[in-house]
Amino acid sequence: MKLKMIKKINIGIAGFGTVGQGFFNQINKFHKDVNVLQIAVKNLTKKRKINFKKIKLTSKANELAENPEIHVVVECIGGSKDPAYALVKNALNNKKHVITANKALLAIHGNELIKVAEANNVTINYEAAIAGGVPIVKAVRENLRHNNIVKIYGILNGTCNYILTKMEQEGKNFASALKDAQKLGYAELDPAFDIKGVDAAHKITLLSSLAFNVPIKFSSTYIEGIDKIELDDFSFAKEFGYKIKLLGIAEKKGSFYEQRVHPCLVKEDSEIAKVENELNAVVVIDEMVGKSVFIGPGAGAKPTGAAITADLIDLMRNNISLPLGGSIMETVKLKNLNILDSSFAYYLKIIVKDEVGVMRKITNILARNKISIDQQKQVHSSKKGYASIVIITHNIKEKIAIKAIKEINNMKRINNKVKFIRIEG
Amino acid sequence: MKLKMIKKINIGIAGFGTVGQGFFNQINKFHKDVNVLQIAVKNLTKKRKINFKKIKLTSKANELAENPEIHVVVECIGGSKDPAYALVKNALNNKKHVITANKALLAIHGNELIKVAEANNVTINYEAAIAGGVPIVKAVRENLRHNNIVKIYGILNGTCNYILTKMEQEGKNFASALKDAQKLGYAELDPAFDIKGVDAAHKITLLSSLAFNVPIKFSSTYIEGIDKIELDDFSFAKEFGYKIKLLGIAEKKGSFYEQRVHPCLVKEDSEIAKVENELNAVVVIDEMVGKSVFIGPGAGAKPTGAAITADLIDLMRNNISLPLGGSIMETVKLKNLNILDSSFAYYLKIIVKDEVGVMRKITNILARNKISIDQQKQVHSSKKGYASIVIITHNIKEKIAIKAIKEINNMKRINNKVKFIRIEG
Repeated sequence: MKLKMIKKINIGIAGFGTVGQGFFNQINKFHKDVNVLQIAVKNLTKKRKINFKKIKLTSKANELAENPEIHVVVECIGGSKDPAYALVKNALNNKKHVITANKALLAIHGNELIKVAEANNVTINYEAAIAGGVPIVKAVRENLRHNNIVKIYGILNGTCNYILTKMEQEGKNFASALKDAQKLGYAELDPAFDIKGVDAAHKITLLSSLAFNVPIKFSSTYIEGIDKIELDDFSFAKEFGYKIKLLGIAEKKGSFYEQRVHPCLVKEDSEIAKVENELNAVVVIDEMVGKSVFIGPGAGAKPTGAAITADLIDLMRNNISLPLGGSIMETVKLKNLNILDSSFAYYLKIIVKDEVGVMRKITNILARNKISIDQQKQVHSSKKGYASIVIITHNIKEKIAIKAIKEINNMKRINNKVKFIRIEG
Repeated sequence: MKLKMIKKINIGIAGFGTVGQGFFNQINKFHKDVNVLQIAVKNLTKKRKINFKKIKLTSKANELAENPEIHVVVECIGGSKDPAYALVKNALNNKKHVITANKALLAIHGNELIKVAEANNVTINYEAAIAGGVPIVKAVRENLRHNNIVKIYGILNGTCNYILTKMEQEGKNFASALKDAQKLGYAELDPAFDIKGVDAAHKITLLSSLAFNVPIKFSSTYIEGIDKIELDDFSFAKEFGYKIKLLGIAEKKGSFYEQRVHPCLVKEDSEIAKVENELNAVVVIDEMVGKSVFIGPGAGAKPTGAAITADLIDLMRNNISLPLGGSIMETVKLKNLNILDSSFAYYLKIIVKDEVGVMRKITNILARNKISIDQQKQVHSSKKGYASIVIITHNIKEKIAIKAIKEINNMKRINNKVKFIRIEG
C-alpha cells in the first residue's frame, strides 16, 4: 500500500528553548524528509552551537505565519499571549497546520483558535502540551472518546510530582525540593504556574474538552496548588494508607461536569499513588473499556520533541484530526458543577492547645454539621503544649465542610487554621 | 474543518461470539452511520435474542469477502486457520479493509496477509488483538515507533495474570484459579493457549514487529507457560522482594533481537508488578520518551468491541495506517537471539534431602559454572526430612544456567527437578 505521505514538508519552528531545540535535533537527525525552512528565535545575536546551514533565522515569529513556503508552523514559544497567540492565529488564517506544546494558549484561547482552524480546513495538534511524551491526546482524541468517557484525571505537572515525591521520600521541605526541580529543568518559566496548579489546570481543561466534547473553559477550573502541603501531612496520610498527589480531575456527573486541580489524598495502592518524581500519569474511565492508565515522562526536551514529531508525522501521512476530535461547532452543553456543590471525604489537620474539652468541641461542630468521622488520630504537636488532631471524614458536600472548618477556625484554642486536603477515590 | 469522514460505511461481521456480539452491540447503539450488511455465524438455526432487522445472516464467512457492497470486513472468528484465514485473505484481495481481533492469525500468517493488503491498497487494523481496550497498537504504530524503541514488554494474557494473582493473594492452587478464570470468561477457547503462553506469544510477536520494524516471526518466539508455578514460589519470591508475572518481552540487543514469553520474577515496586487480576499492561522503552506504561483491560466484550470500533472510525475518517506502521517490504533484518545466548538472573528452587554436605555440593556446582549467588534461603520442606533451598543468582548466560541445573538435577539427594524462574529488570 502506498501511504499517502507528503514527500517533503516545509516547516517553521517558533521558539528555540528546551522544546524547540529538542524537536529540531530529532528532526535533523532522523527525519530527512522534513525541511526546516525558518526558525524564530528571541535573540538573533546569541551564539549557538548548532549549524543552521540554509535555515533562515528571524526574530519576528509572525514571519513564519506569513511565509508562503511553510506548510506547518511548530509553536514552541509558550505563554497565552503574543507572540505565540498572534503567530498561531495568523498561521491558521493562512491555512497552515499548527503544532504546539502550548497548553496555556489553548486553555485560554483554544475555542477561538480551533474555530479559526476549522474554518480554514487546518488543524492544531498538541500532543506535547499534555503529559509530554505520553500519547494521551491521540489516545483520547482518536480512540477513547468514542467510549463515553465519564472521568479523566491524572498527575499532569512533573514539577509538583517531583516536589511531593522528594518531600515524602526524603523529608525535604517544600522550598528545597522546588529548587531541586528547577535545577533539573522540570519547572515552568514561572514556578508559580507549577506549584499553584495553573499548569495542571491548563492541561485538565483541555483533557476535559477532549473527553466530554465540551467547549474549552479554563475559567471553570477550580485551582489549588501544593504550596501549603507540610511535611507532617505525608506521615499522617501514610498512617491512614494514603499518599499526597496533585491531581487534575475532570468528571461528568449527570448533566453537570467539573474541572478541578488540587492536592489529593489517594490510596497508596492505587496506580496513581505509585507514579513518582517527574513522571506524569493519566487515567481515563469510560463506559466501554473501563479504566485505562497511561504513565510516562511529562516534560523534557526529548519526550516533548518526540510528541511534536509524532504530531508532524500524523500530518504528513494525512491523519488530520479535528482539534478536539469532534467539531468545536458541535460541542455539548454541560453545566459546570461548582466545587462547593461537590462532595468529598476530607483529611483535616487541626493544631490545638492540649487542654480538656478541645476534642469535644471539634466533634460537636462536626456533628452539628452532620459530618461523620471515619478515622482520627491525635498526637503531640512539635509545638510544646499543643496537639495535632487529624480527622478523616466521610463524604460531605464541600460547602458544608467549609462552613464547619470556619467554625473550628473560630475556636479559641486553635493554633493554626485547619488544613484540609480532599480525598480522591 | 470538514473531516473526511466516510458518511455511510457498510461492514460485514464474521463470528458472533463474545467479541463479535460486543462490537455489534456498540455499533448498533452508538454508531448509526455504520451499516452492518451481513453477519457470518457458525450456526444459522441457533435462536438469538437480537433483532437483526435487515441484516443478512450467513453460515459461509467467505460470502462477506465476496459481497461487493461491503467496504470493511470485521473478523471475529479467531484461530489461525480457515475460515478466518481464507476470509481475511479473500477480503483483502477484494480490496476490503480488514479489522480483526485475531492475534493467532496475524502471528502465523501476518507477513503474507500484510503483503496482500499492501498490494491491494487496503490495510489490516488489529487494536483488539493485543491488550484489548488498551490503545497500544495505535500508540506504537502511529507514535512511539518513530522514537527508536529498544524494548517492549508486558502482561499480555489476562487469564494468566488472573490465575497468578489469585494464587498469590488467595493461596488458591493453579487448577482452581484456572476454573475461576474460565467462569469469568477470560480464558481463550483452548485454555492451553493461555496457560502455556501461546496467546501471549502471538501478541508479543506482533508487538515486536510493530516496534522494531522486523518481519513477523512467531517461530522465533521462545514460549514457556505458567503451569509449573507452585504456591510456595510466590512466598519465596516475596521474601526477596519479587512478584511472579507472565511477561511477553521483545528486546533489541545491538543487531540482534529477542522475543520471549515466560514467567518472570519482577521487583514488587515495579509498575508491572502492580498490574493485577485480568488487567493487561504494556511497557515501551524508546530513545526519546524513555519509558511509557499502558494499563487496562485486555479482554471482554466491551473493551474488545471498543477497540474494533476505534479501528473502524480510523478507517472512516481516512486515517489509514500501514499494518506495521512501515511497509512490510521495507522491514529490517535483525538476527534472532536464541534464549540460550541471553543472560538472566535466576530464581532457583531446589528440594533436597536434609543432610550434611548437600548445600556444599550445590554451591560447588554453581561455582564451577561461575554462577554467583546474590541471595539464598533454606527452609524445611513440607515433605519431612527434606529442605527447600532458594537461590537468587547474579546474571549468567542461559546455556550455562541450564548446564548447572542439569548437574544439580543429577545429584543423588535432589527430590524434584530444580525449578527456575528468570528474573526480569
